[in-house]
Amino acid sequence: MSLSPVSSVPEIRQRLNQLRAGKKSIGLVPTMGALHAGHASLIARARTECDCVIVSIFVNPLQFGPNEDYQRYPRPLAKDLAVCEAQGADLVFAPDVSDMYASPQLTYVDVTRIADHLCGAFRPGHFRGVSTVVLKLFNIVQPDRAYFGEKDYQQLCVIRRMVSDLNVPLAVVSVPTFREADGLALSSRNVYLEPAQRAAAPGLFRALGAAREMIEAGETDAMKVKAAATKGLAADAHVRIEYFEIVDPAEVQPVTSITGPVRIAAAIWIGKTRLIDNVAARSASE
Amino acid sequence: MSLSPVSSVPEIRQRLNQLRAGKKSIGLVPTMGALHAGHASLIARARTECDCVIVSIFVNPLQFGPNEDYQRYPRPLAKDLAVCEAQGADLVFAPDVSDMYASPQLTYVDVTRIADHLCGAFRPGHFRGVSTVVLKLFNIVQPDRAYFGEKDYQQLCVIRRMVSDLNVPLAVVSVPTFREADGLALSSRNVYLEPAQRAAAPGLFRALGAAREMIEAGETDAMKVKAAATKGLAADAHVRIEYFEIVDPAEVQPVTSITGPVRIAAAIWIGKTRLIDNVAARSASE
Repeated sequence: MSLSPVSSVPEIRQRLNQLRAGKKSIGLVPTMGALHAGHASLIARARTECDCVIVSIFVNPLQFGPNEDYQRYPRPLAKDLAVCEAQGADLVFAPDVSDMYASPQLTYVDVTRIADHLCGAFRPGHFRGVSTVVLKLFNIVQPDRAYFGEKDYQQLCVIRRMVSDLNVPLAVVSVPTFREADGLALSSRNVYLEPAQRAAAPGLFRALGAAREMIEAGETDAMKVKAAATKGLAADAHVRIEYFEIVDPAEVQPVTSITGPVRIAAAIWIGKTRLIDNVAARSASE
Repeated sequence: MSLSPVSSVPEIRQRLNQLRAGKKSIGLVPTMGALHAGHASLIARARTECDCVIVSIFVNPLQFGPNEDYQRYPRPLAKDLAVCEAQGADLVFAPDVSDMYASPQLTYVDVTRIADHLCGAFRPGHFRGVSTVVLKLFNIVQPDRAYFGEKDYQQLCVIRRMVSDLNVPLAVVSVPTFREADGLALSSRNVYLEPAQRAAAPGLFRALGAAREMIEAGETDAMKVKAAATKGLAADAHVRIEYFEIVDPAEVQPVTSITGPVRIAAAIWIGKTRLIDNVAARSASE
């Protein structure tokens, strides 16, 4: 089998309707392409749970700000198709912008509150773009299950709440972050990093880990945790910290006192590259 | 057969999944209850086109403003069930507020531009409430066709665009406004009118008709049409005009020069009752 991507909405609908008529369960892995081992693990997980696995590849202009990397975002389609095929995907949906936005988009989905902090505070309109395109993909593919990585934790929370609030008939499945041996979370944007920058990048995961250790050792003061855990990052000349927050795991609201399960999430800039990561932690004082 | 309403989301889903498994086509008529002959015509139309007709009855708090008539909106459920049964509906979905909004609603759907004028300008948040609840109903019922009256013309345009922009897999079917012999459009709110108010109400449709006649006789200046057509309404002591607009039929934006098909739409207050109506017109100068 050689995978050839489908770009037309009517054509992908027709292919999927045939599968549904045969009572096949459908798993969707929505991506922006530039697939790495993290994406591969999402496809592999879908492969174990669904009769038919469809990967969408779409660099969604709606979720990029005017000064962000929409134009230079990597688009290695042939390589991406090989990853999909190697992981056993059945279909690749790779629409053009004109397929996804055939008319000027006037309709937007907003998940309030959950989109307010972390990346939402620094990328205005980003999560509106994400939730809108993901709902479009859900309506085109009508999957039984949709797979998202924990690396984009706030995105995962936004989509989970959108699905629940709008009664979208599917299950959201989350998959743990895939990391390099030195802890760096896989990201399509890691290719932007020059060698010295790449060497600095694992500092993000180390800082998150330091915060987790303090919390699990009993520290409940979020300010103290953040100040101590970010010392190394703050001292690194390659790194600018955008945010480093401790939030509740469902609605990702910053907490000041840590008394239960939390998520520690951060964004840093290394040169012109923005990296995000997050880990779970549970207060020892619970 | 006696119709007993289903209020639980899981139960209505289960009933509908059985029908879908039997390849039955499903038609949804979303209503707020207080059913009249206009609603009956929607159900009757669905009956001719779908294997299974489901009527939803839900007075949606999200689409009412803080000073609007959510509390006093009529809720004659037994009478409504009789109307559904008489028109041959198969299922009635009548959820409680706690069924539809099981968690605090954080997710909203906005159809920009189309919701900006007419009722949208006077009822902030109204169309956000409408599009959000209608999308929830679409996701719960997953109908093949959904039926809406032309009386709520802006609502119809909002929903058509939402369905198209979000790739919702269903067809929106519109049904002409049902009128009393004197022209008054049927509305659940007509029951609020006292006799003298009821006598004044058909002035709305007369004004719309006067505007249509001028346009079809060749008048292209929207200001002139509005000024002349609203004279009678403006002189009626029972009536306060909220808006009287001539708009393009797709995105309901006000036009100043009438050169093609338009919609003439108006809202008036008679005492504490708000009435809306609209008609199509086509410029003679096209």
